[in-house]
Amino acid sequence: MMRIDILTVMPEALESPLHCSIVQRAQDKGLVEIHVHNLRDYSLRLHRKVDDYPFGGEAGMVMQIEPVDRCIAALKAERDYDEVIFTSPDGDLLDQPMANQLSLAQNLIILCGHYKGVDYRIREHLVTREISIGNYVLTGGELPAAIIADAVVRLLPGAIGDEQSALNDSFQDGLLEAPVYTRPADYHGWKVPEVLLSGHAARIADWKLEQALERTRRLRPELLK
Amino acid sequence: MMRIDILTVMPEALESPLHCSIVQRAQDKGLVEIHVHNLRDYSLRLHRKVDDYPFGGEAGMVMQIEPVDRCIAALKAERDYDEVIFTSPDGDLLDQPMANQLSLAQNLIILCGHYKGVDYRIREHLVTREISIGNYVLTGGELPAAIIADAVVRLLPGAIGDEQSALNDSFQDGLLEAPVYTRPADYHGWKVPEVLLSGHAARIADWKLEQALERTRRLRPELLK
Repeated sequence: MMRIDILTVMPEALESPLHCSIVQRAQDKGLVEIHVHNLRDYSLRLHRKVDDYPFGGEAGMVMQIEPVDRCIAALKAERDYDEVIFTSPDGDLLDQPMANQLSLAQNLIILCGHYKGVDYRIREHLVTREISIGNYVLTGGELPAAIIADAVVRLLPGAIGDEQSALNDSFQDGLLEAPVYTRPADYHGWKVPEVLLSGHAARIADWKLEQALERTRRLRPELLK
Repeated sequence: MMRIDILTVMPEALESPLHCSIVQRAQDKGLVEIHVHNLRDYSLRLHRKVDDYPFGGEAGMVMQIEPVDRCIAALKAERDYDEVIFTSPDGDLLDQPMANQLSLAQNLIILCGHYKGVDYRIREHLVTREISIGNYVLTGGELPAAIIADAVVRLLPGAIGDEQSALNDSFQDGLLEAPVYTRPADYHGWKVPEVLLSGHAARIADWKLEQALERTRRLRPELLK
């Protein structure tokens, strides 16, 4: 069973994303254990503070190394970890191959960034992998941690009810998906393509591949290289 | 005041991300109103169903056009919307300039994708903009919607307490940030760079720029082009 430990100063932000849908079901099925740790529990300071002003003066507060180090050390004393991931806008960009690779790990730590940043020594000495979910800035690292967990957990064998689904995903075969349609066949004059109603399995398969190729060429040409 | 309407079949997944930290504070301050709508409330079917099998046969269920159309029509009857956004892995990739641009909107609808997909007519006729938060597949569109809301809301004037902070972010000046450090200056032998303790404002500024350039060149060379 996979284990994911998420370290944060805002555990409440992770409540609903980790208890919904496929991620909750994967936990219920015993495919993954996800533990959220409040870094304040590892603070030795008054009022469980975990941040302080940056050296060299600048706006914002910086997360201190001590509580992070103490939390990671406590976890590592119990088991080995494949990676200590830090969510950061300048990390390696998450993509499907990376998610596939991470889904093979046994134990992962994900440290959520916060405030103006974290003491850089955390990144130099404690973190093994920095991951960005995209080139944009967010309030904190909690949503990115939830994204990484979601992208990884749904790949665990058995996580998705329908075994077909994950393999058919966009990106997994290097192509975007063909358009999908469901009832009604005619909605206020907007119609489903004839071929999908034809019942000809071979023609339908051809059409889907054609559409997938066309969409990929137009929207994600880099996938075809 | 900005208004964001999020359409989903899983409103509970958005509970904590929209009620934390800066996003909650921005709502409290009256900078933004975020409304989450359960698409099941717009279903006319038994058991408030909103999905059905795809035409042409394939694994997974497809979200139907009717509840989405009814929900969007109800919202549009009340006010004009700048964009009807659909979160999709093959949409335009979210980046900081796009977040900046969206933060100028008055009213936004974000439709969360789900199941195997949504009836393609929704994307053709009802959606004005498809946005992907990255090249990876997720369980649903709820986390991406939360990411878009977070990236946008934190840019609203007044959302971040310290006015400096958003402008100093990674990406906003086209450079990654220099490393930041806080107390203690020496942690088990891991030391803060001397210059940051020097008190020389000009030398510190030089060092920060140098580090920002070096990190950008190494980690995000495309930003320098």
